[in-house]
Amino acid sequence: MSNAPDVKLLGERADTMIRTLGSISAEPNRLFRAFLTPEHRKAADLVAKWMRAAKLDVSEDALGTVRGHWAGESKKRLLIGSHIDTVIDGGMFDGPFGVIAGILAVDHFTQAGRKLPFGIDVLAFGDEEGSRFPTTLTSSMACAGTFDNARLDMADKEGVTLRDAIVAYGKDPAALAEAAYKRGEAAAYVEVHIEQGPVLEYKKQPLGVVTSIAGQSYLNVEFLGEAGHAGTVPMMLRRDALAGGAEVILLAEKMARDTKGDVVATVGQLRIPSAASNVIAGNVALVVDIRSGSNAARQQFVDTFKTEIRAIAKRRELGLTITQTRDVATTPCDQSLQDGIAAAIRSVGGEPLELSSGAGHDGTAMAKLCPIAMMFVRCRGGISHNPAEYTSPSDMGLAVAALIRFIETVKL
Amino acid sequence: MSNAPDVKLLGERADTMIRTLGSISAEPNRLFRAFLTPEHRKAADLVAKWMRAAKLDVSEDALGTVRGHWAGESKKRLLIGSHIDTVIDGGMFDGPFGVIAGILAVDHFTQAGRKLPFGIDVLAFGDEEGSRFPTTLTSSMACAGTFDNARLDMADKEGVTLRDAIVAYGKDPAALAEAAYKRGEAAAYVEVHIEQGPVLEYKKQPLGVVTSIAGQSYLNVEFLGEAGHAGTVPMMLRRDALAGGAEVILLAEKMARDTKGDVVATVGQLRIPSAASNVIAGNVALVVDIRSGSNAARQQFVDTFKTEIRAIAKRRELGLTITQTRDVATTPCDQSLQDGIAAAIRSVGGEPLELSSGAGHDGTAMAKLCPIAMMFVRCRGGISHNPAEYTSPSDMGLAVAALIRFIETVKL
Repeated sequence: MSNAPDVKLLGERADTMIRTLGSISAEPNRLFRAFLTPEHRKAADLVAKWMRAAKLDVSEDALGTVRGHWAGESKKRLLIGSHIDTVIDGGMFDGPFGVIAGILAVDHFTQAGRKLPFGIDVLAFGDEEGSRFPTTLTSSMACAGTFDNARLDMADKEGVTLRDAIVAYGKDPAALAEAAYKRGEAAAYVEVHIEQGPVLEYKKQPLGVVTSIAGQSYLNVEFLGEAGHAGTVPMMLRRDALAGGAEVILLAEKMARDTKGDVVATVGQLRIPSAASNVIAGNVALVVDIRSGSNAARQQFVDTFKTEIRAIAKRRELGLTITQTRDVATTPCDQSLQDGIAAAIRSVGGEPLELSSGAGHDGTAMAKLCPIAMMFVRCRGGISHNPAEYTSPSDMGLAVAALIRFIETVKL
Repeated sequence: MSNAPDVKLLGERADTMIRTLGSISAEPNRLFRAFLTPEHRKAADLVAKWMRAAKLDVSEDALGTVRGHWAGESKKRLLIGSHIDTVIDGGMFDGPFGVIAGILAVDHFTQAGRKLPFGIDVLAFGDEEGSRFPTTLTSSMACAGTFDNARLDMADKEGVTLRDAIVAYGKDPAALAEAAYKRGEAAAYVEVHIEQGPVLEYKKQPLGVVTSIAGQSYLNVEFLGEAGHAGTVPMMLRRDALAGGAEVILLAEKMARDTKGDVVATVGQLRIPSAASNVIAGNVALVVDIRSGSNAARQQFVDTFKTEIRAIAKRRELGLTITQTRDVATTPCDQSLQDGIAAAIRSVGGEPLELSSGAGHDGTAMAKLCPIAMMFVRCRGGISHNPAEYTSPSDMGLAVAALIRFIETVKL
């Protein structure tokens, strides 16, 4: 292959673009870009400008997804996408870097005067974080042809429906179906994203291959004990709901640790109604977030976990309610595409660490359309959804170089 | 001793008095009588009426404490007291029964035409629950001569100071010092109170002897870990503050259980700032309430507990702050008076169970004045500070009969 990409230059360009895009916010002192807002408009315009500079044909669909098309020798297309919306007080890298990496990769081939056996579409989605409406991934669902029109009636905090927001953005809800790719047209979807976790940093690797996007179960656990005076009820006569809750927290941790990476489980929310320092807790409610790259491992974890919680309730004579409020299946990444990403990472000097993505991504929606793959990029301290989010220019340069290599070698 | 008390009749009279006093409330649908309010006034007037009917000389001090004096053969007095204020949405028995028991006991001697070697003062205090001002036990402190005038400037939620409330109640703050008993005048203080715990019921005994009013330590424990994404941070790289908190909750429980009754420890309040189901808790604050009849046992518990918490923080790599916000010493009950109460309980057919009071009482303040003793009466389910609070007429009858027996036999 001719003209090897200049990793340092690519990293610097990416960093400049990240900072320019990161300056577009609804608020002066923190980053916030929600779906179909004036900030979304400004960010989309900037992305479109970059795409045109890289000789991509730019269009927008009814949900505002910016699509930069680069023609190839066939009608087949490789889709490279990510999102340009953010959480409230978010970081600059989560989402935008995937779009920028796609644009810089295409620009590399444009500048080299290369033609590829397939076309490339770079996609900038606007609704991955779900920061505005009580739904998420609508823009990638529209591209995948799985958008459900019932979602048009969902309203944001101000009561504006998705339908009205689309119109206010200058688009036509009736044109939503046209956003969908035709079968056969989209050959594969690739997403480059910061890891949002600490594993690559811990393993001292800049890049990783995602094996799957984790499935997720949410269990709401409520214990009903007996409230009582902290001074007058002897230990042996207590039915302390919070002590039961404490056992569940440590059980979730121990069971997840015992899976040695197959499953992660977290209790991040615990509520004691009528809590007081001098009152034995009569009632406790907590939420357990369980994720795994394997549906079977997750299901087995949930089953065993429920059995163990029932045993805790029985031993402590506590009333118990367990409600499963979420059950999302794992999205596997395509093996052949994973191999291609791994080889590309090796070609830029990295050791392709395999990771399951614990966070959700647009790839989850795009997997309904075509095979998907994801490349993760190291981020400092694993910190994300936070202004302190940071990925170094050199890691970004390596990621773009690996993406270029992947595009050069992938068979679609 | 002549004319044995009619236990059944005493119980019925006590029950009627409890219900009459219990109907005096600031609100129509729940019981609430706070210090120096119109409800306090009405309750004090009713108590004074009952005292006069039992041939007690009634007076009130500057804090509204109703004092019914029954003259004896010497200037020495046995004080029998409790409180007539309540918590918000409280029960009818907590406090008032002790006052009623005193009045019924004196009435027994009045009706029998008996004279005793000592006088009796029945005291109805108005500030045991601390429901109005950010202070408590002021009325018993005034009687004990330990009232600190700085408390006069404390204000209730409406901004009314204790000083102004005293004036509004028709009393004179300058006369507060006169409320104090002279040394030698008060020979002993006895308080009859519902247990507010489940031990007597569990042991199937109507009455118990209080060995001490428990001392109390409050520890505020704060862990600082690292917030993180519940899906992306592997179990082994987490510094989960809530998991640390869960260990503290179970440690408090286990250590207290291991003392086999010497110490009770409770975590009733736990806060996760910025809690979210999908975020590893970066920060947790909880309060540990530790009580014991023994200062040494409580201190040893606190010391060991702190050491163990530090070990948890070290093992989990969590930042730790422990703040001791309360350190109240145990109030011991006088052994000779305890023996008298125990003998009196036996005389009415009970087995005098020894208990440490986990809750605070006016006896804590009165112990600065003279030797104190307390008798506990069984209450259903150990429930107190609740409209469901209940003590049966027959248990109340036994308590009054035992108090009469105690008065007949005590050497002061």
